[in-house]
Amino acid sequence: MRKIHVIGIGAGDPEQLTLQAVRALRDTDVFFLLDKGEVKADLTDLRREMLAAHVPEGTYRVVEARDPERDRRAGGSAYSPAVGDWRSARADIYERLIGRELGEDECGAFLVWGDPALYDSTLAILQEVLGRGAVAFEYDVVPGISSVSALVARHRTGLNRVARPVQITTGRRLAEGFPEGVDDVVVMLDAHQTFRQYADEDIDIYWGAYIGTPDEILASGPIAETAPRIERLRTEARQRKGWIMDTYLLRRHPRNDARED
Amino acid sequence: MRKIHVIGIGAGDPEQLTLQAVRALRDTDVFFLLDKGEVKADLTDLRREMLAAHVPEGTYRVVEARDPERDRRAGGSAYSPAVGDWRSARADIYERLIGRELGEDECGAFLVWGDPALYDSTLAILQEVLGRGAVAFEYDVVPGISSVSALVARHRTGLNRVARPVQITTGRRLAEGFPEGVDDVVVMLDAHQTFRQYADEDIDIYWGAYIGTPDEILASGPIAETAPRIERLRTEARQRKGWIMDTYLLRRHPRNDARED
Ligand SMILES: C[S@@+](CC[C@H](N)C(=O)[O-])C[C@H]1O[C@@H](n2cnc3c(N)ncnc32)[C@H](O)[C@@H]1O
Ligand SMILES: C[S@@+](CC[C@H](N)C(=O)[O-])C[C@H]1O[C@@H](n2cnc3c(N)ncnc32)[C@H](O)[C@@H]1O
Repeated sequence: MRKIHVIGIGAGDPEQLTLQAVRALRDTDVFFLLDKGEVKADLTDLRREMLAAHVPEGTYRVVEARDPERDRRAGGSAYSPAVGDWRSARADIYERLIGRELGEDECGAFLVWGDPALYDSTLAILQEVLGRGAVAFEYDVVPGISSVSALVARHRTGLNRVARPVQITTGRRLAEGFPEGVDDVVVMLDAHQTFRQYADEDIDIYWGAYIGTPDEILASGPIAETAPRIERLRTEARQRKGWIMDTYLLRRHPRNDARED
Repeated sequence: MRKIHVIGIGAGDPEQLTLQAVRALRDTDVFFLLDKGEVKADLTDLRREMLAAHVPEGTYRVVEARDPERDRRAGGSAYSPAVGDWRSARADIYERLIGRELGEDECGAFLVWGDPALYDSTLAILQEVLGRGAVAFEYDVVPGISSVSALVARHRTGLNRVARPVQITTGRRLAEGFPEGVDDVVVMLDAHQTFRQYADEDIDIYWGAYIGTPDEILASGPIAETAPRIERLRTEARQRKGWIMDTYLLRRHPRNDARED
């Protein structure tokens, strides 16, 4: 039976690999590297360097494929079908890769940025491929350090406050309003610096870009004064590198500070 | 200047240590192990085994201390002051440990279960100690695999669904109602199996106890049929081991499935 590891590789620092991930890398015959376009070439390089550092040369093959373009122009309610189409286009590719490139008794691996559990479609795609029934395989998941964990570690703060909840959401969602019932919100996938919408509120922001990499930039403080600084840093960095990945925690000062439980 | 590492060690599987964590362990002169009472002795043992496995003998000292008892009887609005008292009692201990046991040029470490960012007070206590001004030190944080990441990896599912948020909360909070605005909720620190309160709803539960350890138990499925099974498993396990640590994800089927973004 074919086997597949879905391996979380951490969100930028190659030392965020776990021992379990290293073991899974060494156990793998074929690595499937999906290139998400020019701007993300740096991320593919990082994966290749990880393999070179941890897996003896000559013990594995690398198969590269181009990820289908996601139709990002589709906005609003059209977003979802576009995701659906994109997902099944990817399922086609994964099915072909597994069927053609992985021997019956071999082990393949997908190296997933951060933690495979957060805003990543690899698991859903593998489930779709299995559901189609054309190729059979077993698979397991190796958890990774997410950019969320890396962000707050660098800021030396927690995700939640004592006995309180934390929400992880997207820029698109945050644009619709500050989430109900929580004062600690982590925002990912925000291309529009949506935090600016809340610059008048009593909120602290903990922001980070390229966290864990040599390009890492951090900024934190009351949102009113920190937002303009982040805008500047972000614009400069995106121009310099051609792409940016950033994440932030918004920590709202509760209206009624007395009630803490 | 004294240095302190706050090291996330993963939530049960010693292979969840990251390479960065191993490096920090090796860099440490003095490990502070805080024993949280008899029932958690297993967890202290796991930490000692990690040290034995990764750090050359004779290169470090271990200082054990007893964590003050937290007043768990205090319920409702009294919960918060109890947390506060407990925290400053711990700050007293940490201050004394650092001041007395760590040389001026030495590096100390606290080994934190899972990820230091989730429901853990170590960072807040160190900040309190620093604020008091009696001992000075630098500190950094090494992120770890949380029980949340470990849970969903074992169930081979994601935390969020496509473009949707996820909330991490406590059993106590969940008892007050299903969180607003989210359909994916991870629950920690639940001594009362609060999921039973939602057994009539269209929810899938992904549950795990002692995740990543040899005692690991997993169960998942529609909550109506899975809740009684979890109750049974949980009661048996707690009797057998004397303590239990469990976490679960509640995934509610959205009322309006059409809107996915
Ligand atoms: C498609 S999601 C993948 C998340 C990933 N699975 C994880 O666990 O971090 C991509 C988003 O993750 C965040 N991200 C990933 N790596 C990051 C890094 N090194 N620094 C800052 N943000 C990062 C950004 O918000 C980005 O938009
Ligand atoms: C005080 S919190 C600490 C959480 C920890 N910092 C983390 O990142 O997982 C303790 C709670 O974490 C969860 N937990 C920790 N380790 C676990 C494990 N191995 N299996 C299941 N749940 C676990 C349980 O919900 C438990 O009540």
